[in-house]
Amino acid sequence: MLKILKLGGSIITDKSRLATARLDQISRIAHEIAGSEDLVVVHGAGSFGHIHARQFGLPESFSVEGLLRTHLSVSDLNRTVVEALHDAGVDALPVHPLSSVVLRDGRIHLMSTEVIREMLRRSVVPVLHGDVAMDVSRGAGIVSGDQLVSYLARTLGAGMVAMGTDVDGVMIDGRVLSCVTPESIHSIESHLLPAKGIDVTGGMRGKLRELVELAEIGIDSRIFNAGVAGNVRRALSGEILGTLITGREHGDGPQEA
Amino acid sequence: MLKILKLGGSIITDKSRLATARLDQISRIAHEIAGSEDLVVVHGAGSFGHIHARQFGLPESFSVEGLLRTHLSVSDLNRTVVEALHDAGVDALPVHPLSSVVLRDGRIHLMSTEVIREMLRRSVVPVLHGDVAMDVSRGAGIVSGDQLVSYLARTLGAGMVAMGTDVDGVMIDGRVLSCVTPESIHSIESHLLPAKGIDVTGGMRGKLRELVELAEIGIDSRIFNAGVAGNVRRALSGEILGTLITGREHGDGPQEA
Repeated sequence: MLKILKLGGSIITDKSRLATARLDQISRIAHEIAGSEDLVVVHGAGSFGHIHARQFGLPESFSVEGLLRTHLSVSDLNRTVVEALHDAGVDALPVHPLSSVVLRDGRIHLMSTEVIREMLRRSVVPVLHGDVAMDVSRGAGIVSGDQLVSYLARTLGAGMVAMGTDVDGVMIDGRVLSCVTPESIHSIESHLLPAKGIDVTGGMRGKLRELVELAEIGIDSRIFNAGVAGNVRRALSGEILGTLITGREHGDGPQEA
Repeated sequence: MLKILKLGGSIITDKSRLATARLDQISRIAHEIAGSEDLVVVHGAGSFGHIHARQFGLPESFSVEGLLRTHLSVSDLNRTVVEALHDAGVDALPVHPLSSVVLRDGRIHLMSTEVIREMLRRSVVPVLHGDVAMDVSRGAGIVSGDQLVSYLARTLGAGMVAMGTDVDGVMIDGRVLSCVTPESIHSIESHLLPAKGIDVTGGMRGKLRELVELAEIGIDSRIFNAGVAGNVRRALSGEILGTLITGREHGDGPQEA
């Protein structure tokens, strides 16, 4: 069963400081991942991407310098994550969205997943990340880790999607929701707090939209707190944590549009 | 007209020393490239790839550590080239083969070129490099810059292929051949000297095989000395330099197999 693990930028970086990785968190999480099979890891860009992107006016404006600076910065973070996984005994290899994704109006339009499939066949963990990418309609844009998770879960047919964030799940009035469904999403959205620090990819609201779309086609996901030691391991072994995003609560499968 | 420029590893690195870039050569060449349009740059790995690859037994053996070390090293070189191009005023972005190519028996089996096409449409120079890649038959292998040039020239329909090396062209008995054809290649091969330093991708012989295949489908190429100041600019502006590899000398177009 294919598992997709998202590591939020807020967990693996200090979002208040430019390009600052949380090496202790990354190393701890890498060790919690060790031993998992059939796994794709997608991490956010955190302070390696958002500050550069904001500085160069992305995603609204098209500047090759902005694309390059943002990409090289998130590539540095990706290298740190891949090296930590390697040090923890995980056979991981990087896959860069700028090299493999084309957007249309900010959404993934084309993405060759053959490299990822071949890595999985060879028991390698592909490690993707939020990145900049070319866009056929806008020149270029940002492809968030959340959007990559959603696309890969759909395209590769994931059996588990675990979204590690810095909160215990979807919070409303200080309470963690146990479940979000396509039906309940609209009443929840207006209660969500904005993301802490700079986030050019939509924060919890953007994340929920991606995951509700997945739920609508029958792929459930969990938003959990990856900042709590042991939680990544628990999530990967299927323990119930955080908020479940599902379309199945009502027992009627995917909803018609 | 699409131009593809190869920068040999022997020009942009010191092949006798691990991971040593020739920054002066890279900067000079970047300035010679400035102003060219509709261009793809592919560079070799030189001492950033071959020594790692040899150390880990690539391409014969499959070790994720070997793939990672080789890839990260050639990615460093790629960043140096892209940064130099940027400093020279060229809007360049990296494209990593490990993220976008799948091999079969050491040859490119699948490669999504949509990212490259979109960069070209937006006047961005994609910068690829010799790299490791997953291989459906062997687990993983090496994709040489020469093979990338050949594949991209064919797939994108290049109007010019310029192969910058550290020699004046195809040399036999100290003389530069003005022309190599599919008919003359067999008599030439046995006279070629082996590459200087470590080269896991076939040296001049491997290069000529790629280019003769191109010539057979009507795409001519030139092997020239990129170590001579001004030659990259001359080659990109269409001047006659070095050795022409062509299938058209006999006026009968592509040969039947």
